[in-house]
Amino acid sequence: MREVILLITCSLDGYIADENGNVDWLLDEDEYDFDSFLAKTDTLLMGHKTYRQVLGFGKWPYEGKECYVFTTRSPYPEDEKINDRIIFSNDPVGVTENLILGTGGFIWVVGGSSIISPLLNKGLISELRIAIQPIILGKGIPLFRDIRKDIRLDLKSSQEYESGIIELVYHLHKK
Amino acid sequence: MREVILLITCSLDGYIADENGNVDWLLDEDEYDFDSFLAKTDTLLMGHKTYRQVLGFGKWPYEGKECYVFTTRSPYPEDEKINDRIIFSNDPVGVTENLILGTGGFIWVVGGSSIISPLLNKGLISELRIAIQPIILGKGIPLFRDIRKDIRLDLKSSQEYESGIIELVYHLHKK
Repeated sequence: MREVILLITCSLDGYIADENGNVDWLLDEDEYDFDSFLAKTDTLLMGHKTYRQVLGFGKWPYEGKECYVFTTRSPYPEDEKINDRIIFSNDPVGVTENLILGTGGFIWVVGGSSIISPLLNKGLISELRIAIQPIILGKGIPLFRDIRKDIRLDLKSSQEYESGIIELVYHLHKK
Repeated sequence: MREVILLITCSLDGYIADENGNVDWLLDEDEYDFDSFLAKTDTLLMGHKTYRQVLGFGKWPYEGKECYVFTTRSPYPEDEKINDRIIFSNDPVGVTENLILGTGGFIWVVGGSSIISPLLNKGLISELRIAIQPIILGKGIPLFRDIRKDIRLDLKSSQEYESGIIELVYHLHKK
């Protein structure tokens, strides 16, 4: 079974972006060993909005990795496909269920909540790595929404950073 | 200046109670040294809903401490005053501004968000001690709402507990 990891940053009050989708309030986190996480990651899962946001950053940062982009649009916007490892799909749950059964490195759930929630609701995310920024935004785009029932977690570890970011690592609670 | 401390527990997604105000999803936290915090606390601030919830627990747990209960109801429900250290008021900001100038122990902001938010918006809470429960509720009564602008924080410390609860301690960010 491959590991499906949600690695994401949010405000203390659980927003991943402000109301307009901006993330300029994020602190830089030089100390965080993201490269080592990325090196172990083969496959990315993200919503279409997140995909377009990443494209907006300029050069595609995930060269060589398989990247599923979920959208309800049909036909899929193939002209937005910047390389042949980008796969458009409208079925985050089905894709993830299949991927888990294969072999390979980490499957990284990048965001946003439109794909996080169905995967969490189905119990398909095995680990949550949530970096909490030292800020209360008050409003914005929530990390979690449309969660159908309580999801119990086990805290595995935590790591404070100089910047005031704290990363919390949870596994799904074993009954 | 007296210290005004928000000490509260919430779910990972920032709810202090479920939609019906229930908190039966809270884990017990035997290890947490709440008694030592309470011993340093002279004054409690809480909203009227929180007050009625505490009354519902049975014996008043804060005997001997001054307790301000904030309500917009007028005249104040004096028949709910269970001892002469309970003070009803409709002005959380004014009361807190006055208390800070005096001398004494900790001022504990107990909750809920109807008093937390105006105090945070005015910069009157000096320390936040937030115990994050290892659960995603998906919906409920939010800890933070009606926050008018970003509130930057400094992470002071964190403490993991056996139960999976993690307590994060923040101070207001010094500009």
